[in-house]
Amino acid sequence: MSHAEKRLKLDHETQQESLYFDSYTDVSVHEEMIGDRVRTNTYRMAILKNSESIRGKVVLDVGAGTGILSVFCVQAGAKKVYAVEACSIAEQAVRIVKQNRMEDRIEVIRGMVETVQLPDKVDVIVSEWMGYALLQESMLNSVLYARDKWLRPGGVMLPSTAELYITPVCDRVPVIRVHFWKTIKDQYGVDMSCMTDFARRCIINSEITVDTVDVEDVLSHPARFAELDLQRVTAEELREVKGKFRCESFGSAAVNAFCVYFTVTFPCPEGPLVLSTSPFKDETHWKQALLYLDAPVDVEQDTAVAGEVMLYPSADSARNICIHVDYTIGEHKRQSKTFSTID
Amino acid sequence: MSHAEKRLKLDHETQQESLYFDSYTDVSVHEEMIGDRVRTNTYRMAILKNSESIRGKVVLDVGAGTGILSVFCVQAGAKKVYAVEACSIAEQAVRIVKQNRMEDRIEVIRGMVETVQLPDKVDVIVSEWMGYALLQESMLNSVLYARDKWLRPGGVMLPSTAELYITPVCDRVPVIRVHFWKTIKDQYGVDMSCMTDFARRCIINSEITVDTVDVEDVLSHPARFAELDLQRVTAEELREVKGKFRCESFGSAAVNAFCVYFTVTFPCPEGPLVLSTSPFKDETHWKQALLYLDAPVDVEQDTAVAGEVMLYPSADSARNICIHVDYTIGEHKRQSKTFSTID
Repeated sequence: MSHAEKRLKLDHETQQESLYFDSYTDVSVHEEMIGDRVRTNTYRMAILKNSESIRGKVVLDVGAGTGILSVFCVQAGAKKVYAVEACSIAEQAVRIVKQNRMEDRIEVIRGMVETVQLPDKVDVIVSEWMGYALLQESMLNSVLYARDKWLRPGGVMLPSTAELYITPVCDRVPVIRVHFWKTIKDQYGVDMSCMTDFARRCIINSEITVDTVDVEDVLSHPARFAELDLQRVTAEELREVKGKFRCESFGSAAVNAFCVYFTVTFPCPEGPLVLSTSPFKDETHWKQALLYLDAPVDVEQDTAVAGEVMLYPSADSARNICIHVDYTIGEHKRQSKTFSTID
Repeated sequence: MSHAEKRLKLDHETQQESLYFDSYTDVSVHEEMIGDRVRTNTYRMAILKNSESIRGKVVLDVGAGTGILSVFCVQAGAKKVYAVEACSIAEQAVRIVKQNRMEDRIEVIRGMVETVQLPDKVDVIVSEWMGYALLQESMLNSVLYARDKWLRPGGVMLPSTAELYITPVCDRVPVIRVHFWKTIKDQYGVDMSCMTDFARRCIINSEITVDTVDVEDVLSHPARFAELDLQRVTAEELREVKGKFRCESFGSAAVNAFCVYFTVTFPCPEGPLVLSTSPFKDETHWKQALLYLDAPVDVEQDTAVAGEVMLYPSADSARNICIHVDYTIGEHKRQSKTFSTID
């Protein structure tokens, strides 16, 4: 790569990074995150129930945003919380800390966690780093960097594990959208049924679609294909998160997509607390990731759907991800498709 | 402007144009437009009821998309329809024309109406050119260009007039969104009420917001402030569409926004047919344009709300628009604010 090319690539990366942090300067995203009751209540409960580990201790909140998790940590008894936030929302966090009279306990530090200086190591790291399909945004890399640099040996990570699941689904959205073009003749007297091919090509693409999957559309018990131990996993390992899966279908249906979702788990004295984005649980703002197959495949009761899933950062933009799925449905031959998020 | 600057500006404009046409290559936008029953049924009725003007005549459909309006024109008896479309959706229009066995009547021409060649002048121009707040996208310029070049004297424009309306509203969305930050304390035990200022600044900005206005939020009879006669209006006149307005408020309330919407009218033998995007009518995909005031102003029964509105193309991007409103509410002093759409 020439010097000029390298500079162009660096310019592009800097621009992408500033766009990434800009996306957190508007109030809407914070409204959505804090308004997600499943997310905020699970973090709140997890922090308050971990007061044994937090009381009198020093906490690092990575990507603190408005600082709400830092406030929870003080409520759980933290001696000191470093609320690190790169985006200008940090200014609001400062005001919120004051309004809750926690200036002596919470220090808001504006900057990237990779470059900030803390006076000493911390006992606990709390962070809400999860993106769509868990790894979109790649913020976990920053959390791991913070862990390796600032968490004292034996310190606590909140959450402490993340799990990825996959399940075959028969999603009705593309079916309804493609069928729409067959209804035009009855509605307006124009035969537009030849549009179905074009519509199918537009809708059934290789993007990762973020949407809510209806429970009735799920065709098997979900299979866990990867688990990340956040005390131990390395940034290098995140460059390829993969695992095998095997499901048995519930009944006769046409598989037209895979649904990928995640859970994260907090250790708690009275048993682990799970924040789940499963279609079987209450909806969160993460919804589910949908991967549309090029063509639907019929399954019957107990047809095996098996294969391997791999998540990795996109080559185009390190904050975007790709999901590659290799799969076999029943007696059909092995197929594969790679999906990605787009800007 | 230097040669290099001019080239940069031209590059930018070419890129904007290609982005504009690209936005019509996906099926979603056509699904939305054809699925908008108010839009599609009004055009269908207007064309079929104008069969006296269309039967045996030559029609030009500007920005034909999937060609549905061209098919309606053949159903109304057109001898020939030129369906001009710059975007690749023209390929689907060709297939739809074939499927409806109208190849002898409809000629799909891929290209911009500014550059295509027709064998002769046309008797009728039909086009669905309206964008948000009527003029977003600036597609009307292309229709006027086509009119001046290809419509024979005395030819028919469908639609033939467009009208712009304004009305003061008390929109609940920003009120609810700002209030959200006062509810966090009760929900999660963290006082975030100091976020209301920041939230207000993010929400009450100078963007033109496209959203549905509830009838209950409308505070007066809407006032018409501009009318465009599409047989006569010039591209030059579109560079500044303005007019005065005066409304009397219905009762006590706080005006926090102006709502701008449009109608277009088709001449019909049994009386004009109106396609309305008023909040008092059935919802369309155009919804309404909302212009948030920096601070709400109280009104009482019959308080006069008066002023002047001006629409003009944005200096940054010719397909984006600005709306400038000068207004006086009751005894308050005159104020003004300029709004714009953003990419």
